[in-house]
Amino acid sequence: MIGGGQLARMMVPPAIHLGLDISVLAETEGMSAARAADMVGDYRDAETVYAFADTVDVVTFDHEHVPHEILNELERRGKAVHPRPHALQYAQDKILMREKLAELGVPIPAWAAVAGEDELQQFIDANGGRAVVKTARGGYDGKGVRVIAQADEVRDWFTALAEDGRGGFLLAEELVDFTRELAQLVARRPSGETRAWPLVETIQQDGVCAEVLAPAPVSNPETAAEAARIGAIVAEGVDATGVLAVEMFETRDGRVLVNELAMRPHNSGHFSIEGSITSQFEQHLRAVTDLPLGDPAMAAPFAVMVNVLGGPAEGPMPVRYPAVLAAHPAAKIHSYGKLPRPGRKVGHVTVVGASLDEARAEARAAADGFA
Amino acid sequence: MIGGGQLARMMVPPAIHLGLDISVLAETEGMSAARAADMVGDYRDAETVYAFADTVDVVTFDHEHVPHEILNELERRGKAVHPRPHALQYAQDKILMREKLAELGVPIPAWAAVAGEDELQQFIDANGGRAVVKTARGGYDGKGVRVIAQADEVRDWFTALAEDGRGGFLLAEELVDFTRELAQLVARRPSGETRAWPLVETIQQDGVCAEVLAPAPVSNPETAAEAARIGAIVAEGVDATGVLAVEMFETRDGRVLVNELAMRPHNSGHFSIEGSITSQFEQHLRAVTDLPLGDPAMAAPFAVMVNVLGGPAEGPMPVRYPAVLAAHPAAKIHSYGKLPRPGRKVGHVTVVGASLDEARAEARAAADGFA
Repeated sequence: MIGGGQLARMMVPPAIHLGLDISVLAETEGMSAARAADMVGDYRDAETVYAFADTVDVVTFDHEHVPHEILNELERRGKAVHPRPHALQYAQDKILMREKLAELGVPIPAWAAVAGEDELQQFIDANGGRAVVKTARGGYDGKGVRVIAQADEVRDWFTALAEDGRGGFLLAEELVDFTRELAQLVARRPSGETRAWPLVETIQQDGVCAEVLAPAPVSNPETAAEAARIGAIVAEGVDATGVLAVEMFETRDGRVLVNELAMRPHNSGHFSIEGSITSQFEQHLRAVTDLPLGDPAMAAPFAVMVNVLGGPAEGPMPVRYPAVLAAHPAAKIHSYGKLPRPGRKVGHVTVVGASLDEARAEARAAADGFA
Repeated sequence: MIGGGQLARMMVPPAIHLGLDISVLAETEGMSAARAADMVGDYRDAETVYAFADTVDVVTFDHEHVPHEILNELERRGKAVHPRPHALQYAQDKILMREKLAELGVPIPAWAAVAGEDELQQFIDANGGRAVVKTARGGYDGKGVRVIAQADEVRDWFTALAEDGRGGFLLAEELVDFTRELAQLVARRPSGETRAWPLVETIQQDGVCAEVLAPAPVSNPETAAEAARIGAIVAEGVDATGVLAVEMFETRDGRVLVNELAMRPHNSGHFSIEGSITSQFEQHLRAVTDLPLGDPAMAAPFAVMVNVLGGPAEGPMPVRYPAVLAAHPAAKIHSYGKLPRPGRKVGHVTVVGASLDEARAEARAAADGFA
């Protein structure tokens, strides 16, 4: 696994249980996945990645940032890479993603790749006077995303793009009037077998995932079927291997529109560690090693995941365990081994149960114990 | 954790999730817990154990075989050791265990510490012409246990005991007419908080645990209460810290008798990884670090665990994954990273569900896939 963050960290437990050897190329010493970090180095350096790949049978990822050319070369050398570079590019570049989703015919917001302020202003004017503008590459957790009314509000981005030679296009999207956000997680193996988890609702705060409700409370009975249909089309259409997260908007008029794609385990699937028969981390391991996929059914009627953002002022999450564990004996606490910092995802809490409201209240209260 | 077997291995996932650093002193390279084996050495060598203990805050165990004197010295040096040596001795020496259980007044089979064949024959004659004879130390999984009718059937043990200076006593026990075997798992922390899992039924084959049904099917409604009462008395009475497994017989006449004690996570609790809100491995970590204990309630109506004994002829368990995972998508497969050998515990399978019979059939079928 390239990347030593919390996704790599949470891949280690199912690897241990299944008896699959996992090895991590971490960016630095002491990262979240340090226990499995057999190598430390820069994933942007081709020789480092090739040397790491030589030690494993299959290469997969904690993030989407490994340069496309390095991954293509790995494939040319005969190394199994999952997701494959020709799939991963749709998670690496939001303009490629929009082009592909349009080609696949799944419902998406109005969008345009815009090369300059005039073009962007035309898009804004044609879409109700506002737009969501995104950098094609490198954004996450609300970074690289702005809601604007005037094209000059992203002048700095156009300038930077022109300077760094990355092509000069920004992605402009319709500001969708959504009632809530949903995520459809799907796993697919190279041989084509696909399994989907129940649809979940994600609740964002300031562009960052704050809570996930699994399964998503039923609004329109057709929503879950439509989300599953879209997830299957996208997984097959982009040739995804491993876990694919399709983030969606549910609109006021009952439509489901694809917002973002991630091709790896995703924050919207952390609930699955306790909430599903097969967690997204175990399923990703099975999928990238082309093993038969596990049952993604719920292991409990409901699971609610609440992120711990920021963390305790006085140190890593365990400093609060004496109080939080005593008050919340049924809460499953996950600490990523990170130092607290305002807004940083340092861990999460999951509570499962027969009542969504009770699980949510308990998960929130436990997560609040780390604030 | 001293000892690098599968119990240490299965402690790593909850340590990762909770963000507690775990470090293992393994007997050799490449053991089950190799991923966390920061040191390799002989646990019978005092200096090795002291050097390892210097690297951690709390010492705990994968097995009961660390010499008592080494652990006493660690405590004298101020190191936290859980379970404490004065408790662990009851799991290290079956005669001390019987003496203590008798003192605590919990129901146990008739027993005697016998120094020679004459004394043993008297016990046999007084108990229906047969007896279970056990070496006080070093037995496990049916080793060090014989059912005999004539005292000379354990002459070799008396001879060996006389030669190695271990005191010369064997433990003779009444051959209990039991209908089934049960296990009560309890966790207790140094500050005294105690939590018990639901009573489970264990099914042995040739002296080795083969299956565990959780919770134990109800026979007599008072049985679970009696087992819980015994578990609490023993945990407090021996001052156990960490997980304590109390193995019991349910007799034909409705009594519950204590058979064995283990002071660590135990095969009868492996179901708890998926079957309980808090697994025995997470609970052991919480208990030995004196953190508040988690909820030990069932996470599903039923959980059935079936051991994989022996394993595939052609290699470690994963060689069978293409077939077994395809046929049993809801089975949770645990491989201990061990080479197959006749009778060796190389892994286990757990299935949770609303039907005990269906979970049991599925767990057995999946485990059979590794035979």
